Formats: sequence, C-alpha cells, structure tokens
Amino acid sequence: MLLRYAIGDTLRRARTQQHRTLREVSVAASVSLGYLSEVERGRKEASSELLASICQALELDLSDVLETASAALRRNAPQVVAASLRGNATKGADFSCQHRELVDAVR
Amino acid sequence: MLLRYAIGDTLRRARTQQHRTLREVSVAASVSLGYLSEVERGRKEASSELLASICQALELDLSDVLETASAALRRNAPQVVAASLRGNATKGADFSCQHRELVDAVR
Repeated sequence: MLLRYAIGDTLRRARTQQHRTLREVSVAASVSLGYLSEVERGRKEASSELLASICQALELDLSDVLETASAALRRNAPQVVAASLRGNATKGADFSCQHRELVDAVR
Repeated sequence: MLLRYAIGDTLRRARTQQHRTLREVSVAASVSLGYLSEVERGRKEASSELLASICQALELDLSDVLETASAALRRNAPQVVAASLRGNATKGADFSCQHRELVDAVR
C-alpha cells in the first residue's frame, strides 16, 4: 500500500467521523474541494504544507494521522511482501527476519 | 515541523546508521543522488512511489519510517503550538485538551 492511500484513507475517516463534508473541510483548509477529494482517495500526493493545513482544518495532530497511516500500512504489509515474492515462503521469511534486524538496528 | 523534514531526517539517520553513502542508496532506489539528498534534507517532497523505493533500498518498513517521523513531529509539536499562540498559556492549554478529545474521538 502506498503512503498516499494510507494517509488519504485516514483523513477521509476522520472527516466522516466528524460528520463534516468535503466542502466544509476544503474551505477550512483553503484547498479546492476536488483536490481534497483526490487526496482522500489517494489519487493525488498532498504536499507537506497542504497536509498540515488539512490536519489543522480537521483539528488533528499530523503525528496521530501518521500513526494511523503507519498501522494501516503495517496491516497491509504481509500481503505486499507475499505478492512481491510470488509465493516463495522461505525467501519471504528470511527477508522478514533480516528486515526486522535492520529496523531494530536503526532504532 | 513539516512532514517532509521529519521523513527526510528519518531516512538520512537510517542511511548513515547503515554506513551507506547517498550514492549507494540512490543507485539501489533508482533515484538521482541529488534528489535523494534533497529529500533527506526536507527540500523536496518524495512521491509515495519514490518513498517506497527509498525504504526498500534501505530495507526499512515504510510503517517504521512513519512511526519514527510521527515521534519526531510529536516532540516538536508543543513548541509549534506555543509559538502559534504567542505565549497565551491558558488558551494553549484549552486548545491542547480540545485537540486530544477530538483525536480520541476519531480513534
């Protein structure tokens, strides 16, 4: 799953849970309704400035939006790895272990 | 702090902790050295595809990169709120409480 899909989905869920329309949030964020709609559907990349503006309009911390997007990516990751390795389970497991060690090393 | 700074910094730290050069990672990620350098310094937005490619080159989960970036944004958030409210501590506190409630409601 690409980042823009995870972020767009997170923003759309936040907006609908607040019972706000695309129009309301687009006005509050000073972006066009069409652009906001495209961002929510993961069809357009939001610049960092635009993303900050949308988060402010939704009264959300960008850090919380990222955490939610990160969780969505994590849920989708196994399928992506499996698909990219075309069913090579052993190789997939090795990759996953190496991966975790590297991530731990970076932390 | 804007998202591209938080992500760029996270990517640069991961690369340097792996003792890899910009050249090595740019070749592995199929992006130009100059572009990767700009992304790391937060001067250019990386598209979702490019970001996925850089993460793959660094053998990092994008979800981990986002979590690290989220933590960096969270560390920087209080200063941003304080600055934007120009020292109005009471208003700042109210804003912070409202904010937390909204974030919790979305979750």
